[in-house]
Amino acid sequence: MFTEHKEDSIGALGEVRLIAQIRDWLGEVVPACPEGMGDDCAVVDAPAGLQILTTDSLSYGQHFDDTVSAHDAGAKLIKRNLSDIAAMGGRPGYALLTLLCGNDLRLDWLAAFIEGIRQTCRHYNVALVGGDISSLPKGHFSSVLSLTGYLQYPPLRRTGASKGDTIYVTGSLGGSIQHKHHGFEPRLAEGQWLAQSGACSALMDLTDGLAKDLRELLPPQCAAYLHMERIPLSEAACQRATETGRPPLEHAFCDGEDYELLFTVKAKTELDRFEADWAARFPGTPLSRIGQIGANEGGKPYLDIKTNTALPWMKGYEHLT
Amino acid sequence: MFTEHKEDSIGALGEVRLIAQIRDWLGEVVPACPEGMGDDCAVVDAPAGLQILTTDSLSYGQHFDDTVSAHDAGAKLIKRNLSDIAAMGGRPGYALLTLLCGNDLRLDWLAAFIEGIRQTCRHYNVALVGGDISSLPKGHFSSVLSLTGYLQYPPLRRTGASKGDTIYVTGSLGGSIQHKHHGFEPRLAEGQWLAQSGACSALMDLTDGLAKDLRELLPPQCAAYLHMERIPLSEAACQRATETGRPPLEHAFCDGEDYELLFTVKAKTELDRFEADWAARFPGTPLSRIGQIGANEGGKPYLDIKTNTALPWMKGYEHLT
Repeated sequence: MFTEHKEDSIGALGEVRLIAQIRDWLGEVVPACPEGMGDDCAVVDAPAGLQILTTDSLSYGQHFDDTVSAHDAGAKLIKRNLSDIAAMGGRPGYALLTLLCGNDLRLDWLAAFIEGIRQTCRHYNVALVGGDISSLPKGHFSSVLSLTGYLQYPPLRRTGASKGDTIYVTGSLGGSIQHKHHGFEPRLAEGQWLAQSGACSALMDLTDGLAKDLRELLPPQCAAYLHMERIPLSEAACQRATETGRPPLEHAFCDGEDYELLFTVKAKTELDRFEADWAARFPGTPLSRIGQIGANEGGKPYLDIKTNTALPWMKGYEHLT
Repeated sequence: MFTEHKEDSIGALGEVRLIAQIRDWLGEVVPACPEGMGDDCAVVDAPAGLQILTTDSLSYGQHFDDTVSAHDAGAKLIKRNLSDIAAMGGRPGYALLTLLCGNDLRLDWLAAFIEGIRQTCRHYNVALVGGDISSLPKGHFSSVLSLTGYLQYPPLRRTGASKGDTIYVTGSLGGSIQHKHHGFEPRLAEGQWLAQSGACSALMDLTDGLAKDLRELLPPQCAAYLHMERIPLSEAACQRATETGRPPLEHAFCDGEDYELLFTVKAKTELDRFEADWAARFPGTPLSRIGQIGANEGGKPYLDIKTNTALPWMKGYEHLT
């Protein structure tokens, strides 16, 4: 993605022409000024009420490597943010894009990265209204996207669960390194449906792995009692297990970057009806009833519901260590 | 700002404890959840109407170096964004902070950086509601802040000027490298006052230097006719000139990072009255009537109003070249 030939790099254009080029690549997902790029701030028309704000970054060497295409990297940057919007039950609004890169970044690589952003913005109806571009040393690339969103219903937070609530997860888990860490679809429609259902008590998206993330949903003095056979193992988790010699379940718990929804449903909910409604509304999105929230008696956060023994997997992906 | 001793670095804490530590450092400028940190998105109460959005980054080696304290670097990150809000005549709202850093970043350096952000947020009444933290290779540090804001009056854009309008600039220009590039005060009150005055036709903040930025305010087929003796030279510009052997005016035009307001006032305005009102309202903020917008007859954007000759300074700071 970098080049020693200056004429192929972004350094050949310089900042002013590069920004004009990026705006051109983005096409219709950049609205006309005053909403769009080109002034000190973007000006957008915001509906009254609760707004949500999120930001996520994507760095070369950390969130993607040379095995991921520039297009998929760009799409991943915005989908990571959309997954956060989904995890509040919200709808996306406006995006700001920051690029930090060495001036030896290949111009055609950047064009494909922006094309991934453009297609994803278009697909999810996101307007990209501004941003910033800044230098890093040669050979480095980071990108940051900030995204606004809107709520039509009260936000589904991480902290709403109670003892007796049932734990669900969408899709399948583990082995995201094979493909899913960039090939996922943010569960926006599912999150919005949960927000209007009235049944959901807490919601988050799985980014660092079930082992690290599930703890966030547990109220004080509570533990998660899990049906181990119902944890939805991805094919990639099983394949990884054959490579690493570790159990597929460990990959499902610890790999991270699943970008699935993890949520709890209130104790009084009629679960069969809830699941039938889900299946009718989202036939392509598997839903797994993986366990229940109960009293924490032994100090361990996760237990096998059948044997009442603590699970060995407690950590997911941790940055900066 | 980096260390070889892991126990003094952010790597000693790991991501989860580091985020908790940063939240603790930020104190009262992080509102309680749901507004604040700790969920997939921040939830904020947005007034109906026009919202403004901006983002700006601050990278070690590009926007600051070892001569700038961590505290001043943190303050600069948020003040750069506040200057963009000022340049629309708006009021700041909510901020998202992204840190991208090597795990060898010194923890005490980061504490001082965050303290600079905290004090500035507090001073300008900005709530910091979320963010992201991510790794870079050892020895590297970048930060990105995204900021929302509100407009009580129509936005003051860059493109509202007409032939006959008068050009003003606040403060003094040039030599920002000496101190001002981090020691400036964003002109928020001044921008808001301009927005309600009805007299201002176009407004921007000076970030890349008058030579590069003034062009943004010029309508098609127009040029800026400038009173050279009224360009407010900073002491730092004069001092730089003795070091570089170049004219102080060149430094005032080309150095960049002034973070002053550059604006035009409508042709029909009573300028003496406007300036008297300004002086009464902002006795500490010098205002210079530097020129006028007129027809572009020779193709050059900037002319000396007395001699009608083109100015030699056309370029300011350009990134990525």
